[in-house]
Amino acid sequence: MEKYVYLFEEGSKEMKELLGGKGANLAEMAKLGLPVPPGFTITTKACIHFLKNNGKYPEGLKEQILDALKRVEAKAKRKFGGKPALLVSVRSGAPVSMPGMMDTILNLGLNEETMKAIIEETNNERFAYDLYRRLIQMFGEIVKGIDQRKFDSVLEKKKEEKGVKFDSELDASDMKAIVEEFKKIYKKEAGEEFPEDVFEQLFQAIDAVFNSWNNKRAITYRKLHGLPDDMGTAVNIQMMVYGNKNEKSGTGVAFTRNPSTGEKELYGEYLLSAQGEDVVAGIRTPKPIKELAKEMPKAYEELEKIAKKLEEHYKDMQDFEFTIEDSKLYMLQTRTGKRTAMAAVRIAVEMANEGLIDKNEAIMRVTPGQLNQLLHKQIDPNAKLDVIAKGLPASPGAACGKVVFDADVAEAMANEKEKVILVRPETTPEDIHGVIAAQGVLTSRGGMTSHAAVVARGMGKPCVAGCEALQIDLEKKQAKVGDIVIKEFDWLTIDGTSGNVILGQAPMIEPKMGKDIKTLLGWADSIRKLGVKTNADNPVDSAKAREFGAEGIGLCRTEHMFMAKERVPIVHEMIMAESEEERKKALAKLLKMQRQDFYEIFKVMDGLPVTIRLLDPPLHEFLPNKEVLTEEIRDLECKQCKEKINLEKEIEEKAQILKKARTLAEANPMLGHRGVRLGLTFPEIYEMQVQAIIEAAIKAMNEGVDVKLQIMIPLVGIAKELEKMRAIVEKKASEIMEKEGKKVEYKIGTMIELPRACVVADEIAKHAEFFSFGTNDLTQTTFGFSRDDAEAKFLPQYIEQGILEANPFAQLDTAGVGELMKIAIQKGRAANKSLELGICGEHGGNPASIEFCHKVGLDYVSCSPYRVPIARLAAAQAAIKHSK
Amino acid sequence: MEKYVYLFEEGSKEMKELLGGKGANLAEMAKLGLPVPPGFTITTKACIHFLKNNGKYPEGLKEQILDALKRVEAKAKRKFGGKPALLVSVRSGAPVSMPGMMDTILNLGLNEETMKAIIEETNNERFAYDLYRRLIQMFGEIVKGIDQRKFDSVLEKKKEEKGVKFDSELDASDMKAIVEEFKKIYKKEAGEEFPEDVFEQLFQAIDAVFNSWNNKRAITYRKLHGLPDDMGTAVNIQMMVYGNKNEKSGTGVAFTRNPSTGEKELYGEYLLSAQGEDVVAGIRTPKPIKELAKEMPKAYEELEKIAKKLEEHYKDMQDFEFTIEDSKLYMLQTRTGKRTAMAAVRIAVEMANEGLIDKNEAIMRVTPGQLNQLLHKQIDPNAKLDVIAKGLPASPGAACGKVVFDADVAEAMANEKEKVILVRPETTPEDIHGVIAAQGVLTSRGGMTSHAAVVARGMGKPCVAGCEALQIDLEKKQAKVGDIVIKEFDWLTIDGTSGNVILGQAPMIEPKMGKDIKTLLGWADSIRKLGVKTNADNPVDSAKAREFGAEGIGLCRTEHMFMAKERVPIVHEMIMAESEEERKKALAKLLKMQRQDFYEIFKVMDGLPVTIRLLDPPLHEFLPNKEVLTEEIRDLECKQCKEKINLEKEIEEKAQILKKARTLAEANPMLGHRGVRLGLTFPEIYEMQVQAIIEAAIKAMNEGVDVKLQIMIPLVGIAKELEKMRAIVEKKASEIMEKEGKKVEYKIGTMIELPRACVVADEIAKHAEFFSFGTNDLTQTTFGFSRDDAEAKFLPQYIEQGILEANPFAQLDTAGVGELMKIAIQKGRAANKSLELGICGEHGGNPASIEFCHKVGLDYVSCSPYRVPIARLAAAQAAIKHSK
Repeated sequence: MEKYVYLFEEGSKEMKELLGGKGANLAEMAKLGLPVPPGFTITTKACIHFLKNNGKYPEGLKEQILDALKRVEAKAKRKFGGKPALLVSVRSGAPVSMPGMMDTILNLGLNEETMKAIIEETNNERFAYDLYRRLIQMFGEIVKGIDQRKFDSVLEKKKEEKGVKFDSELDASDMKAIVEEFKKIYKKEAGEEFPEDVFEQLFQAIDAVFNSWNNKRAITYRKLHGLPDDMGTAVNIQMMVYGNKNEKSGTGVAFTRNPSTGEKELYGEYLLSAQGEDVVAGIRTPKPIKELAKEMPKAYEELEKIAKKLEEHYKDMQDFEFTIEDSKLYMLQTRTGKRTAMAAVRIAVEMANEGLIDKNEAIMRVTPGQLNQLLHKQIDPNAKLDVIAKGLPASPGAACGKVVFDADVAEAMANEKEKVILVRPETTPEDIHGVIAAQGVLTSRGGMTSHAAVVARGMGKPCVAGCEALQIDLEKKQAKVGDIVIKEFDWLTIDGTSGNVILGQAPMIEPKMGKDIKTLLGWADSIRKLGVKTNADNPVDSAKAREFGAEGIGLCRTEHMFMAKERVPIVHEMIMAESEEERKKALAKLLKMQRQDFYEIFKVMDGLPVTIRLLDPPLHEFLPNKEVLTEEIRDLECKQCKEKINLEKEIEEKAQILKKARTLAEANPMLGHRGVRLGLTFPEIYEMQVQAIIEAAIKAMNEGVDVKLQIMIPLVGIAKELEKMRAIVEKKASEIMEKEGKKVEYKIGTMIELPRACVVADEIAKHAEFFSFGTNDLTQTTFGFSRDDAEAKFLPQYIEQGILEANPFAQLDTAGVGELMKIAIQKGRAANKSLELGICGEHGGNPASIEFCHKVGLDYVSCSPYRVPIARLAAAQAAIKHSK
Repeated sequence: MEKYVYLFEEGSKEMKELLGGKGANLAEMAKLGLPVPPGFTITTKACIHFLKNNGKYPEGLKEQILDALKRVEAKAKRKFGGKPALLVSVRSGAPVSMPGMMDTILNLGLNEETMKAIIEETNNERFAYDLYRRLIQMFGEIVKGIDQRKFDSVLEKKKEEKGVKFDSELDASDMKAIVEEFKKIYKKEAGEEFPEDVFEQLFQAIDAVFNSWNNKRAITYRKLHGLPDDMGTAVNIQMMVYGNKNEKSGTGVAFTRNPSTGEKELYGEYLLSAQGEDVVAGIRTPKPIKELAKEMPKAYEELEKIAKKLEEHYKDMQDFEFTIEDSKLYMLQTRTGKRTAMAAVRIAVEMANEGLIDKNEAIMRVTPGQLNQLLHKQIDPNAKLDVIAKGLPASPGAACGKVVFDADVAEAMANEKEKVILVRPETTPEDIHGVIAAQGVLTSRGGMTSHAAVVARGMGKPCVAGCEALQIDLEKKQAKVGDIVIKEFDWLTIDGTSGNVILGQAPMIEPKMGKDIKTLLGWADSIRKLGVKTNADNPVDSAKAREFGAEGIGLCRTEHMFMAKERVPIVHEMIMAESEEERKKALAKLLKMQRQDFYEIFKVMDGLPVTIRLLDPPLHEFLPNKEVLTEEIRDLECKQCKEKINLEKEIEEKAQILKKARTLAEANPMLGHRGVRLGLTFPEIYEMQVQAIIEAAIKAMNEGVDVKLQIMIPLVGIAKELEKMRAIVEKKASEIMEKEGKKVEYKIGTMIELPRACVVADEIAKHAEFFSFGTNDLTQTTFGFSRDDAEAKFLPQYIEQGILEANPFAQLDTAGVGELMKIAIQKGRAANKSLELGICGEHGGNPASIEFCHKVGLDYVSCSPYRVPIARLAAAQAAIKHSK
């Protein structure tokens, strides 16, 4: 016959699946010799059988329960329903913690007879009736579903009557009266008397706990946390000990270390003369655990010893519940303690230093998400916030400032040391100085790869994008969310981690790369196999990334360098050029600027590799929007007509740009005339960039800088594209080196960001020294998803409906995109043994994706500066996980 | 020592690579015992050595030539440079025919001495000087590069002087005088005397022929035809025979069958008293070969015998050159004869029926391109055309009609039985009735997949798209190409096969699916392994395809059914709907129409499978262009302002549509909210379509039609998409079947048109009964090419630069897209053994792609109705090719 019931001494912490978390840990504590009141656990298997069979017990369960109860009686030297009376608690305990989701009943076993026995034993009528009224309320609520407010109001009335504030101020007769009232309520609501038969109480309670697995809030919780519905819950039946027995009794909750700061100290709170639920319910304010050292020094000392023992045994910070009955300490629960990100890091590092765990274990103890929290300015999690809208969490971190609707205003105010939030329908290259000046950016349109999002992420600046509830009126300089009006210079806070938009100035917590983080990441560096580079395209970001431990630049996008305000007109000139000659004139102006850009980056990255990607986006992306131009032209025409003034010149100018924009327009720019395609059809653009790069390298080298240059060709899908472009680059580079009389060592490689590039990677690898997986675009083409369109139109629904498990733009789709990467890696390496392989899509900073990159054997990941520490940690965790 | 020189009797027709086509066939004819004047061939290897080594002969070449010449002298019983004089021709002959690209010199070996010998031998001074003047001109031209017009003008002057028309009317003294003049020209231009040394003549001529391999026109020809530059040419040196010797001499060219019609008859022309080049040069008009039967019956009879022998030996229609010297027939060349498409079919079928070749060989003899020619209306290839512009060849065939710029006008005129060509900047769903009414469509914008192109191809209607030279002024109802103005109702011809736009009415040839084609395709059907289905979405196309031999519909696009003029407002209503209820109302109206569509198609395809694809394009594609709407609104506002009239209502209406268009707008519609994504987010649309399909099927079945239904879900990239959509379709279908009380058998499958679908095909196959490769979209996503953008912006340059060998949208990219298909086939079949696999992209009608489909083991290809016969042929050819 299957064993459905385990005495605590029969279990262990490894048996969580069968005994639930609470049961397994009670068993473990019992095994450790800690003072655990005797009891037993009914397995999850029994629960599953019960739920599947319409409330029927499996064969033997009832007998096993009764048998176990007998053994508890023997240990306790008490009798359930007898004298001296044994009362028990019945508590749920699922294999995975579902805090507060399921039910607990205390003080089971009370009836007229046992009441007498208790009063006799304790000589404390008030205590006995206090237990009784608690039982009736909990039982009524949980087993019979009686609204608890019905009971509470009786209690309130009584306190009012007596003019007291706390339950503890009520005397025995009050409690007795309350019990009478409770019994009446019970009878009325349940349609029957409160059961006198203690076994009836017990089995009804067990059934109720079994059934609580399928109560609405438990189902919702599991759905929310992606937990399976078929685990079932265990039920723990344990002898009651009484924190409410007298003034030498009490109950509390504590952590072995401070869960907020990680400091090594006993941390928690307790209440004297109270039962467990009183601490949670907040009826009286509990005291800090340190005070127990004064009030009950012996109990405190024992607690400290137990805490140490728990940590030594569990090798982690634990939280636990305890009860003191008449000066005697009992342990009622323990589990691994939840902690803040900061505490997680400190505890991990200190435990490793104490020798409690090894460094690998310390590394595994901190989640990348926790590290991420620590590296961005955060809104104080304790603050009350006035969240008025939610957009896409486009660039993490929180920012607070005065609202401005114009990039020039933003810049002017920033010059006056004012903090501003730039609010725009969407940003364009013309707004870039405004983004630089602002604390953060909020847009009402655009997705995770909109201009605002990409630029903000690149700068490590918070951004909430595509906040559609926000209606911006640029003319009136105000925005609305429903009835709420946000005017220029109003204070606003945005949280780029959650997407929240908050009215006013939310209180902030500053990020720190503290001592402990540095220690932990140092350990991570010594373990990880993956290199960690950064995506950066200016000296400031590069320096930040280097500070965060980046080992080079894996992706320096050159198009962002075209977006500075003073460069936009020259870029326009280049695009509007009607001849190659005209275009070269404009390019010559850009050359000087680009050279300076690269020179500064080389200096900052002295000694580390710098991978520069030649121009990628289609040219029309640098021109204004066609619809906007059309409107502007019509406005001018209208003005001309109404005011009888000649505006032909202005109209003609705009018409010229519109004409060019129409010529260059593409149905699907993502799949259009960009990347190497642009480089092959307008070689003079790439040639200018190569010249700027080589000249900058020589200038830096002449100043003693160690330049490690890699030139990257974007969007190659055909081996011949790279072969031809390589020839063009090499020719130009040689020309410049010859002219300057100095040799620059450099490598040429390509982005792998098209499915075709993956399947013909062997051909492409013949012309490349490195591959960098551009998984943003590769995800778009592999799925056939335009990221912005998909995220706005159907991706959220796909994730909600479970068609996709995660947003493939945030977390690498290993089944599809990853499969293509594997093909590319295998073919690429087979054709070119010395091929260096990396990833520079956003996935390079996503922990799950980093683990995949480790598994498939990439050489490095490259991510935005602020994700470099996360990548270092995640890479180490991947190495540890897969070395086992 | 390497053998560089082969006597004719030493070679054979298999040695083309070494001896060139001409040399190999001369050798073959000699072996057959045909009357070939003796001679020898210098190999292509000698030529390659010569060209690589700056004009140096390989060791032994000179000696081998002189030795071979001795043997020819012995055979001819004549002496080169001696008495009786041996003259020779020196002719180039590459391994692959390059007609007219390289050089020939006749009558080599003439000098003062041999002239005397010939005059003595023939007693014909005129003949001897005629040979001499020919030699000096050819030699001067080819060896020394002297402009032939310098020689011609002497001849012309002499004829003028004598008042005669033809060379043959000049007498011996005239010829003698001409020779003197020619020698002077030679000396002046070449800077030296015409060589008296016959061996000098010979080797200079050989060198010139070697060098002609690299003359400009030869290089261009090879580039144009994709021929390698390193083959080299052979040189044939052969005893001269003289068609110009006397009235019993002559020369001619003939085919063993009629190369235009394929009729089995000797076909060709000849000239008496002439040398070979006179026939080609057209100095006198040659006579039809039949007349030789009267003029020289014996020679004609011998020719007939030789023709028969050649066909029996070569197993194909041959063309050949001959010379008659003094009544004796000599064969100078033979090769496989070029022929028209019509002749190709007839000859192949008749030769198979005659037992000359087997049926497989007959099938291989007709190229799919030739068949294609026969199945579209063509412009008479002999007509002189006034081509004014060239666009993209978007839908093959030629059409001629009066120009109209408006779909309504097109329809009205078609109702009056007028033929019209619809000319539009681009077409939209609103123009569909105009396309139906027109003979053909010409657009100035849009590419190979523009609306006009797709719709026209679907209808088998000629279309020239994206003709950018065409400036259309819709208001003035005229179009311009440079200075040429095309007004409404002007006659215009378009050639959708070449992209040509022709002024006026070009003469046409009607297409025929003649007896011979049917016979040949019947043979093809019995051999091919691939099924051939069609892409059709209306009863007319379906019937046409069935007539052409389609074995079902492989792709019935339902979106085209939304484009009929009377449906557009209802489709708009559906899109503009603000609630699901409103949308369902509009859908109910569409339901009736769709049901009728499907019913009619089922009837036409009685007994054959019909694969219906549910709605694919994003909804915004059914709305008017945003820029156009913006302009229209501004026009109304302007009108309102100027004319002080109230147009608010009209403006508001348009503004509503514009708003919706903006909401639905996508950055990259190709990768946007379409296909199954649309079906999952708006299930009511797909449900309507399923209802229409099932109701139509039941209606048809009730009338005795055998319905074989397949429902196809587009754009699946994730297995769950298909799983969920399958459930929706099955639920709706069951509902309808239950309501109607009748069961309809049907299969559900999906398009495979995304790279991800290929790599997770095993997962997808679990929910599919069939896959149909949508290689149009698969090519777009695999390459990351937006077809329209790529074809307009960089693809032509890519093909020109050799980055791509062919347009991957026309010919399947087997290395990239094909590789993904292989993965999908392998994974799909492994997961689902009974999976049916087909292709319905445009590649399904492309012969090279069909061969690939055969090789990878697809079950069928599906193509537009007019390509069905081509696919049947190509599939058979693939089967034959790969059975070997």
